[in-house]
Amino acid sequence: MAAAVPKKIVIVGAGFGGMAAAKALRKVAAEVIVVDRNNHHLFQPLLYQVATSVLSPGQIGIPIRGILRKQQNTTVIMGEVTDIDKERRCIFASDADRSHAAIEYDYLVLATGVTHSYFGHPEFGKFAPGLKSLADAVAIRNKILQVFEQAEAEEDPSRHRELMTFVLVGAGPTGVELASAIAVLVRTTLRTEFRRIDPSSARIVLLDRSPRVLMPFAETLSTAAKRRLEKLGVEVRLGSGVDQIDEDGVTAAGARIASKAVIWTAGVAPSPAATWLNVETDHAGRVRVQNDLTVAGHPEIFVIGDTAALDQDGNPLPGVAQVAMQQGRYVGNLIDRRLRGKSAPAPFRYADKGSMAVVGKGFAVLQTGRIHLSGYLAWLGWAFIHVRALAQPGMRLSVFLQWVWTYFTGQRGDRLIVKDSSPMREATPARAASIH
Amino acid sequence: MAAAVPKKIVIVGAGFGGMAAAKALRKVAAEVIVVDRNNHHLFQPLLYQVATSVLSPGQIGIPIRGILRKQQNTTVIMGEVTDIDKERRCIFASDADRSHAAIEYDYLVLATGVTHSYFGHPEFGKFAPGLKSLADAVAIRNKILQVFEQAEAEEDPSRHRELMTFVLVGAGPTGVELASAIAVLVRTTLRTEFRRIDPSSARIVLLDRSPRVLMPFAETLSTAAKRRLEKLGVEVRLGSGVDQIDEDGVTAAGARIASKAVIWTAGVAPSPAATWLNVETDHAGRVRVQNDLTVAGHPEIFVIGDTAALDQDGNPLPGVAQVAMQQGRYVGNLIDRRLRGKSAPAPFRYADKGSMAVVGKGFAVLQTGRIHLSGYLAWLGWAFIHVRALAQPGMRLSVFLQWVWTYFTGQRGDRLIVKDSSPMREATPARAASIH
Repeated sequence: MAAAVPKKIVIVGAGFGGMAAAKALRKVAAEVIVVDRNNHHLFQPLLYQVATSVLSPGQIGIPIRGILRKQQNTTVIMGEVTDIDKERRCIFASDADRSHAAIEYDYLVLATGVTHSYFGHPEFGKFAPGLKSLADAVAIRNKILQVFEQAEAEEDPSRHRELMTFVLVGAGPTGVELASAIAVLVRTTLRTEFRRIDPSSARIVLLDRSPRVLMPFAETLSTAAKRRLEKLGVEVRLGSGVDQIDEDGVTAAGARIASKAVIWTAGVAPSPAATWLNVETDHAGRVRVQNDLTVAGHPEIFVIGDTAALDQDGNPLPGVAQVAMQQGRYVGNLIDRRLRGKSAPAPFRYADKGSMAVVGKGFAVLQTGRIHLSGYLAWLGWAFIHVRALAQPGMRLSVFLQWVWTYFTGQRGDRLIVKDSSPMREATPARAASIH
Repeated sequence: MAAAVPKKIVIVGAGFGGMAAAKALRKVAAEVIVVDRNNHHLFQPLLYQVATSVLSPGQIGIPIRGILRKQQNTTVIMGEVTDIDKERRCIFASDADRSHAAIEYDYLVLATGVTHSYFGHPEFGKFAPGLKSLADAVAIRNKILQVFEQAEAEEDPSRHRELMTFVLVGAGPTGVELASAIAVLVRTTLRTEFRRIDPSSARIVLLDRSPRVLMPFAETLSTAAKRRLEKLGVEVRLGSGVDQIDEDGVTAAGARIASKAVIWTAGVAPSPAATWLNVETDHAGRVRVQNDLTVAGHPEIFVIGDTAALDQDGNPLPGVAQVAMQQGRYVGNLIDRRLRGKSAPAPFRYADKGSMAVVGKGFAVLQTGRIHLSGYLAWLGWAFIHVRALAQPGMRLSVFLQWVWTYFTGQRGDRLIVKDSSPMREATPARAASIH
């Protein structure tokens, strides 16, 4: 008597949503396959700390297969999804070298997230990198550190000010956290290390077209955050939409700011999940899902997290980690119940646990239910919650120790300027001329 | 009465030699300028641990200006030297964006090191990266980790063996340390993380044309190291010169080994210091120096470390960190004495402090004077000496804690597969198709 072939559950994307779904399926008598184009799960809320040299990439990026290694029913495949065939029930993926065989599914969970969006100006991307992946964070770190290296090498002091001008476009949590972290970097670690320039005189401009920073927060918290930013020396310009970004700077609300270091912290666009599925989307391109997170007409396909659109009490759910995690858990449990022949659970409901944003050293804003908090206590709460939320004990210990070290010594964990690695670079004697 | 213009001492290269020279000049009443094309000093002896995911790049690469921040007479410039004008006494440097103004010197110290050499076969470089810089280490780490990702994604088991074959060309310290570190990686951290493949069945081949591994060591230690390598499952093939390396593998001593992961741990070639100076070299292209480390006819130009050639007792000095460090200190003191009008010191003499190499977890060989040691005790000595030798207290603590953590848990510090970062990559909606 042959055993029944186990059902195949394919999860695409190992962010907060995909990992929550995979973990919720850990005891299911089925084959779970997690596909991601990276080998690591990324703890995105601390990405700005990699961009500002506090943490190293390896402290917030941890191998997916390491997290799931004890989950024997789960296979991790590194590959980039290129298309989906809903009728044959399979996905297509490839890696750098070749296409994988089609991966079949009985249940499909798409948790493919977002990328940055330049609001119809893709040409801005060349001059203003965004902050979504570890590669982005390293690119921004290179940019920040290189500005000071170039200024120190520049013998003409009249050029120092322009070189040391940072412009951040977008004053949401990412923009606020990154701008204040740069302000702390230049006033602590970098302050005593240069001879020709004073890094603490760097100009940091934070732009947004909205009337206040941290729009999703209560107005009192926005005000507190803005005051703190200004105390840190950040120039906050609100109601200031960007018209132009090029290699020499930014034009916003008619004013020109010369800068070689522009960073994009504004919009996001969903993954192409809707294109693969060829289904209905909201205006932003996110997949419209039913209240059990399935795609209409396809009870075997789930879309969760930032790439899904679902309204609750008349408002669209926000694109935050908590929504993705709760949806991942919901879908994992729903599939588990179906496999065991149980009835469907109640529709998905998001329980808002609140939001936080850091503004420099020892200051955060925190909003949960009726509690609105800003200052040191909120920052301690932020630090505690974020360390606890890291995926593995090793990460928690390492990030915690790094924070304590940086807090008290001002020294950073990883302040490398990383150059492109190409095997050919140092291979020929002719190119050896570049070594010293 | 105008003060005398301070003399300018330019040091090119912030490796072991250049840093030792800079530190020896910390109290000199002169302007010291350290020029390096990277922003970091690299602790090269632990580079193989970055390549095998134990340490992260930021743990062994530390900003040069951070190390020298309290040395008020010293300016650090990030730039790549392209030429030297001995008559005008200036060097030319540039960074990514532009050429710097010529940097003038009264004294010049060239400590520009080596790169890898493919012995007249630069075309090997494309398929067999070497291990000299952090970028190299990350490229090799990507290669090692990707092999297992590709094998796990491969549904045809007959291809697993070829995918999981590593070939290291060169059984000196780098080849031995890297081969044994890969053997430990596949048998500890990776062992339980895959479902379709068994990483511990990976084939690791270490090739060398010489008759034994670790040629500079005593024969008993070479034998002990070889035995240990074989115990770790490394296939050691000696007297086996490489004829061909291409994208499908290696041909050595007439035998073909199919492999997608070939690593070059054999030869090195000096920096182009001799070309810039247009002076006499040894057969390898290193600058022949006088016994006070100056270039003949130029008492103001010093060349030290791996890029200099000097005989002692009839033998050329080896290209090791200790030689570079002792030469750096010697040159710093010599310049100090000259500036203060004192007599020249005695000719440079290298004091050999011995050599060490690690062979996997808990095993090293150590040779100093008449002491020849192999095993656990030598490994403890190695660990102690290397932690102590790190440039800063923060590095020492962080590397030590990481080692303890990895030793007891098998978990690694940084196991990321890093993809190229380009600001354009995620900028356009068309490319957004690659996100999940």
